[in-house]
Amino acid sequence: MVSTDIATRELNNPVDVAEYLFRRLHEVGIRSLHGLPGDYNLVALDYLPKCGLNWVGNCNELNAGYAADGYARVNGISAIVTTFGVGELSALNAIAGAYSEFVPVIHIVGQPTTQSQRDGMLLHHTLGNGDFNVFTKMSEGISCYVARLNEPKDAATLIDSAIRECWIRSRPVYITLPTDMVAAKVDGDRLKTPIDLSLPTNDPEKEDYVVDVVLKYLEAAKNPVILVDACAIRHRALDEVHDLVEKSGLPTFVTPMGKGAVNETHKNFGGVYAGNGSNAGVSEAVESSDLILSIGGIKSDFNTTGFTYRVGQLNSIDFHSTFVRVRYSEYPNINMKGVLRKVVERMSTLTHAPIPPASNRLPESEKNSTDQTITHKWLWPIVGQWLRENDIILTETGTANFGIWDTRFPANVTAISQVLWGSIGYAMGACQGAALAAKELGDRRTILFIGDGSIQLTVQELSTILKKKLNPIVFVICNDGYTIERYIHGWDAGYNDIQPWDFANIPKVFGGDKDNYAGYRIKTRDELNELFTKEEFNVSDKLRLVELYMPRDDAPAALKLTAEAAAQRNK
Amino acid sequence: MVSTDIATRELNNPVDVAEYLFRRLHEVGIRSLHGLPGDYNLVALDYLPKCGLNWVGNCNELNAGYAADGYARVNGISAIVTTFGVGELSALNAIAGAYSEFVPVIHIVGQPTTQSQRDGMLLHHTLGNGDFNVFTKMSEGISCYVARLNEPKDAATLIDSAIRECWIRSRPVYITLPTDMVAAKVDGDRLKTPIDLSLPTNDPEKEDYVVDVVLKYLEAAKNPVILVDACAIRHRALDEVHDLVEKSGLPTFVTPMGKGAVNETHKNFGGVYAGNGSNAGVSEAVESSDLILSIGGIKSDFNTTGFTYRVGQLNSIDFHSTFVRVRYSEYPNINMKGVLRKVVERMSTLTHAPIPPASNRLPESEKNSTDQTITHKWLWPIVGQWLRENDIILTETGTANFGIWDTRFPANVTAISQVLWGSIGYAMGACQGAALAAKELGDRRTILFIGDGSIQLTVQELSTILKKKLNPIVFVICNDGYTIERYIHGWDAGYNDIQPWDFANIPKVFGGDKDNYAGYRIKTRDELNELFTKEEFNVSDKLRLVELYMPRDDAPAALKLTAEAAAQRNK
Repeated sequence: MVSTDIATRELNNPVDVAEYLFRRLHEVGIRSLHGLPGDYNLVALDYLPKCGLNWVGNCNELNAGYAADGYARVNGISAIVTTFGVGELSALNAIAGAYSEFVPVIHIVGQPTTQSQRDGMLLHHTLGNGDFNVFTKMSEGISCYVARLNEPKDAATLIDSAIRECWIRSRPVYITLPTDMVAAKVDGDRLKTPIDLSLPTNDPEKEDYVVDVVLKYLEAAKNPVILVDACAIRHRALDEVHDLVEKSGLPTFVTPMGKGAVNETHKNFGGVYAGNGSNAGVSEAVESSDLILSIGGIKSDFNTTGFTYRVGQLNSIDFHSTFVRVRYSEYPNINMKGVLRKVVERMSTLTHAPIPPASNRLPESEKNSTDQTITHKWLWPIVGQWLRENDIILTETGTANFGIWDTRFPANVTAISQVLWGSIGYAMGACQGAALAAKELGDRRTILFIGDGSIQLTVQELSTILKKKLNPIVFVICNDGYTIERYIHGWDAGYNDIQPWDFANIPKVFGGDKDNYAGYRIKTRDELNELFTKEEFNVSDKLRLVELYMPRDDAPAALKLTAEAAAQRNK
Repeated sequence: MVSTDIATRELNNPVDVAEYLFRRLHEVGIRSLHGLPGDYNLVALDYLPKCGLNWVGNCNELNAGYAADGYARVNGISAIVTTFGVGELSALNAIAGAYSEFVPVIHIVGQPTTQSQRDGMLLHHTLGNGDFNVFTKMSEGISCYVARLNEPKDAATLIDSAIRECWIRSRPVYITLPTDMVAAKVDGDRLKTPIDLSLPTNDPEKEDYVVDVVLKYLEAAKNPVILVDACAIRHRALDEVHDLVEKSGLPTFVTPMGKGAVNETHKNFGGVYAGNGSNAGVSEAVESSDLILSIGGIKSDFNTTGFTYRVGQLNSIDFHSTFVRVRYSEYPNINMKGVLRKVVERMSTLTHAPIPPASNRLPESEKNSTDQTITHKWLWPIVGQWLRENDIILTETGTANFGIWDTRFPANVTAISQVLWGSIGYAMGACQGAALAAKELGDRRTILFIGDGSIQLTVQELSTILKKKLNPIVFVICNDGYTIERYIHGWDAGYNDIQPWDFANIPKVFGGDKDNYAGYRIKTRDELNELFTKEEFNVSDKLRLVELYMPRDDAPAALKLTAEAAAQRNK
C-alpha cells in the first residue's frame, strides 16, 4: 500500500519555504518588503528578487514597522522582515499600532534553526536563558494570528492562513522563519490556487432580517445622517459607503479617523463630527438628527474630542465588521458590507434636512488679517485649497492631526494618522512607506505634516526616502517642542522642550543633494502662499522638506479641547 | 478599639507616591532619569527637581533604554520613564538587552488612571479592546520583578521590593505608575530606613564546605589560571576577583564580555580567551591549564568565537551569582562573592606557569608597513596605546566589539558592549548614558567605536549628547555598510549596503556648533596617530566625532571566525 502521508510523499513541484512565502506576498499585492537585515534572516532575503519583491532596508525596525503600516494603508497590505529578538522587539510599538488601528501588516521574523531552539543554545540575540518562545509570546497580544514555521509539512498551510487572517481581520500577523526552514521544501502546486481573501458571507436570512430592521428605522426617520469612521476604511467598506451616500442623498459627515473615507467635495458632505471639536455647524446637524447611520465607528477619546458625543443610542444604527447594532438591538456575527449593500439596493427615497457643504473658506477672523503669523486657524483651510485629488496626506499625532479636521479634502485623498494609537514619530516612518506605495501604484503626491518634537524620534527615515528615491513633501511644524503635551500638562516645563535642529539641512547629511532634495524655510503667510503656487514646488521629483514656523503656544481648537479633557481624566 | 489598619490609619509623614519613588531612586545612586514625556507621565515628572533628579529627555524610547543601560553600567543602576503603550513598547528591545546582559534598569511606565483601566475605556495609546494588561504581560518575560502600583497601601512596599530585586538580581524591573497614583499618599517615615541592597548571605557551613572543595583542587593543581567573564562585573564580584588575582599570582585572562574586569596592566594579566579567537598565545595557556577558575562565565556563541572553547569540565571550577560548580559537583543557592572572599583568605601559596604579559604591541606584519590603510589589525593596539586610565570605552556589535579583543586596556577602564544581546545601534544610545554617568561621577573620558551601519539606527542620540553638554569621543567606522553581516552571509548583497551619510556634519544639524562640537575625517594611519597626540583632541570639553575610514572587506580575525561559525549554524 502506498503511503499518502504528505510528510513523506514526493512533492510534485517543490519550492523552498521562503520562495513560497514571498510569492504569496507578491500575489496579494505586496511589491516591497520593509525591514532590516540580521543574520537570522539574511539567507531568506536572497529570495526576494526572484519573487518580484523589492527590499527597502530601513534605518531601524521601529521605523520599518511604521513604514510598513503606511505602505499598507495605501497599498492594502504590507510586510516587514526582522531578525530574532533584537530586531522584532524594536518593531513592537509599530505592530501594536497597526493592531490598534486595524492595519494588515505581516511581520516575518528570521529565527535561529529549529535545532538550536530545541537545544536551548546560548546564542546571541537570546536572553541567555534558553527560552526561545518569549519573544513570540510578546507578539501574541498584538497579532491576530501567529504562524510558527517549524515543520515543512504544515508551513504552506500556516503561511496561507496567516495571510488570509491578516487580510480578513485587517490586523497584524506574526510568522516565524527559522533559518533551517528557509530552504525546506513545500508543495509548489498550491501556488496555482490563490489564497482565498474573500470575507465569510453573512447568513442570507439573518442579513435580510437586519436589512429590514435598518430600512424600517431609516425610512421612518425625519432627518437621518451618515457618519463615517475609521473601520469603514480599514475593513474596506468604502464602495458600499459611497453608494449609500450617493443613492440616499443623506448629509454625510466623517469622524477624525474617518477623514478621507468619502468624497469631501460631494454636495452631501458636511464636515467633521467629533463632539465639541466638530467643524462649525456640524455638531448641531448631527446631534439634532433622529437617526445616525454610524459606519465603522471607533469612539475613542481623541476621535471624539474627549468623549463629547451627544448622540443617543436610541438614535443610532452602528455598522461594524463583525456586528450591527440598531438602537439597542445587537446582531452579532454579521459584516456591515453585505448589510450596507442591500440597504443601498432596497432603500426608497429618503427625507432629510439640507446642509451647507463643507469648504476651505478661511474663518472671518483670518480673512482680512494683515498678520503674517502662520496660525493653525489660518493654515489648515489654506492647505485644503492647495491639496489635489489623489493626494496622500499624513498628519502626525500633535497639532497636525487635530489641525487636519479643518481641511476639506479634494476627491480621492488618502488621509493617514494614528488618532487612536497616537505614537509620536509614527508619521515620519509611515510617510516613507506611503510614498513608496504611491510610487508603485502611480502618480500620487505624498504629503506629511509633522512637529519638530515628533520628527526627532524617527528622523532617519528621511535617509530611506532618499535611498529609495521617493518624493514626499515634508512639512516640519517648528513650534519649539511638544505642544500637545504642553496643552495637557507642563506648559513651561523643561521636559516639553526639545533640542533645536536645523531641519532643512538634515536631508543633506543623509545623502541629499540638489538632484534629490530641496529644502525651504517658511515664516510668513505670504511665503507659504507663494510656495504653494510655485510650479517647481508641486512637481513630485524629489524629497522636499519645509520648515514651517508657527507660534509655540498656538494649537487647533480641537486639540485644546481634547487636551483639557485628557488632563482632567488623568487626575 | 483603635484600628491599626494601615489603609485607614493616619500617615505620620505622608509623601506622594511619585516623590517616594524618586527619592528612593536618588537614595540608590541615580541622579538622572532617562526617557520621554508622555501625557500619562507628565505630572510625575514635575516631582523630579525636588527629589534631586535630572531629566534627560531622549529623542526616542529605544535610545532612552539603551542610554539607561549605558548609564547603569557606569553608575551601578539606572531608571527610565516611558508612557503607557506607545512609549514602553519602543523601549522593550533595550530592556530585553539589559535583562540578557544583567544590567539593573528600573523601567517606570506612566499609565492611565486605575479607574480608566478598570472601566476599560477607549483611550489613546490602547489597543482599543479594553485590555490594559497586555503591555505589562509583554514586559514580564524581560523583567525580574513587576510592581503594579494600583493601591496606595502597598505602593511603598512594592517600590522598595522592585528596587531591591533590580539591584540584587542585576536585571530590569517594571513599575507601573497610574496618573491617579502619582499624588496618592504613602508613609514617608519609611524613607528614613534605606532599602536593604545587601545580598542574602550564604549558609556559612555550606560556604565553608564549598571553599574547602575549591581549595583542595586549587592547591593540588599544577598550573591553574583565572578566567574572568561578564557576571563577575555584572554581579559586582570585582573586589573579590582583584584580591584573588593579587594574592594568588595566577595567570589571569578575561573573556570578551569580561573585558575591563581586571587590571590589564597587571603582571599576571595574559589577555583575552575566547577559544579560537583568543589573543596570540592565550588559548595554549588556558587550554593547557589543569584548573580554570572560571568566574561569572557566559559561554555564548559570540563570547567563545562560536563555541570553540577547549576546556574540559573536569578542569573547571565555575563561580556564579547563584551557584558554584566544581568539576561536575554542583552547589546551588550560593553566591560566588562569599566563596571567593574565603578562598582568597584561606589559600596557601600556589604554583603556576609563567606567562608573557599582554601588551599593545603591533603585530610584526604591521610594524614596519608603509601602508597607510587603517586596518583592524593595526587599529586596535594603537587604540590601546592611546587609551588612559579610567576611560570608558563602548564598542558596537560588529567589527568594533571584536576588534577591542586586541586592545590591552590601562587600569580601571570600563568596557561596554553587547556581546550576548548584540542589538545594533545600542552603543550610540549607551554612549549617551555612559557619558552622562561619567560626567556625574567625575572626570572620565567616554569613547565610542561604532559602525556606519549601526549608528544609523540610533543617530539622534548625538542630539541628546549635545543637549546635555556631554563630551564623548565618537569614532564612526566608515566601511560601507553591515560588515559583520557580510561575513555571515551576502557579501555583495544590496541588503548589506547602507545610504552614505555625511557623519561629521550630523551633529551640526542637531544643534552643534564650534563651542560644543568638533568633527574629524581620518583616512590614514599618520592622520590617526597625529590626532591621538593632539592635545586639543584629548580634552573632554565637547562632543568629538571622528569619521574613521577603513576598508569594506576588513574585519578582526575573531569576527571572521565567529561569523563563519554562525553561518554554519544557520544552515
